[in-house]
Amino acid sequence: MVSADILERLSATLASRREADPSTSYVAKLFHKGTEAILKKVGEEAVEVVMAAKDGDKLHVVREVADLWFHTLVLLAHEGLSHEDVLAELARREGISGIEEKASRPKE
Amino acid sequence: MVSADILERLSATLASRREADPSTSYVAKLFHKGTEAILKKVGEEAVEVVMAAKDGDKLHVVREVADLWFHTLVLLAHEGLSHEDVLAELARREGISGIEEKASRPKE
Amino acid sequence: MVSADILERLSATLASRREADPSTSYVAKLFHKGTEAILKKVGEEAVEVVMAAKDGDKLHVVREVADLWFHTLVLLAHEGLSHEDVLAELARREGISGIEEKASRPKE
Amino acid sequence: MVSADILERLSATLASRREADPSTSYVAKLFHKGTEAILKKVGEEAVEVVMAAKDGDKLHVVREVADLWFHTLVLLAHEGLSHEDVLAELARREGISGIEEKASRPKE
Repeated sequence: MVSADILERLSATLASRREADPSTSYVAKLFHKGTEAILKKVGEEAVEVVMAAKDGDKLHVVREVADLWFHTLVLLAHEGLSHEDVLAELARREGISGIEEKASRPKE
Repeated sequence: MVSADILERLSATLASRREADPSTSYVAKLFHKGTEAILKKVGEEAVEVVMAAKDGDKLHVVREVADLWFHTLVLLAHEGLSHEDVLAELARREGISGIEEKASRPKE
Repeated sequence: MVSADILERLSATLASRREADPSTSYVAKLFHKGTEAILKKVGEEAVEVVMAAKDGDKLHVVREVADLWFHTLVLLAHEGLSHEDVLAELARREGISGIEEKASRPKE
Repeated sequence: MVSADILERLSATLASRREADPSTSYVAKLFHKGTEAILKKVGEEAVEVVMAAKDGDKLHVVREVADLWFHTLVLLAHEGLSHEDVLAELARREGISGIEEKASRPKE
């Protein structure tokens, strides 16, 4: 079993890069550009997940979902949040009412 | 610290629902509809992340990222994959070369 | 040659439905739900364009691009704008500097 | 009233660039990269429409919808299609049954 510790380590790394010199890394540059640049990446990676799944290429799906999760972690760090908030939300839904009920709740 | 075990439990639950009667749950119905329906949800949730972030509503961002991760887990389960493949991919990138180098690799 | 008058007629129809009873039509209901509901549709239709193009199904591409344009017309009408603003913007770019230069301008 | 002739001119220009040297223009380069690169742009521009509308910036909405339409025209040209196919589809829906009925048809 793969340890989920990677999410811990990634979140810690991302938090430490928030104020770093933009020239020092891809992530520092993305933080520096700000919310809109991060959101464009989230949208772009979602489209790439869709394309990989349409190709039926499982390895590619894994890579693109990893890219998508990574950029949502960047977004969370940019907002002062982390993977723990997301995992807690997922656990909360499970605890209260079953994930299906939550997922099927009306949204409008 | 929130345990990442929720990803384990969700993946196990999703895998068990893949062949379930579509009328029994939101997820069973989504599996039954197939890849395109799941991908539409991934796209829709990505747009909702973008809107929540534009609103600057942190609680809403957490909920929408949870929705997005949840529907990527549905996609992974539908393809016979799981969160472990994604975590392994994220860990692999970290191990080899630093996440920034990977993230900034040319894509075309 | 197909007349572009259809854009005129659609814009006129949409403008007339902005204040209509939500129960009278799909579009009146969508206007009533508001900006976020319209934007979700724009995102959803963009994903459907991507899926149709990946399938290499030209007829489907045409139908999905029509859906996408239609929902952008709904958005424009909701904002008090119309297709004329978009056509004027496209013409402006052509007039000033060639569409390629405009399209390749730095965005950040 | 703005003439819709701009769509004619754009489609003609795009068709003429399909086989052009990729170094000669933004569009020629995009055609050369192929379907996936064009689809990424469609997805990216859809996200930018969402962000502009969330900002309530009408001028920005117009510019981003123009970008989105432009890149769907690139996609159409890449597939040997044009704006005429899309306008014909929109006119067909109007002619047969009213646009609302069409738009509200079940999709799955």
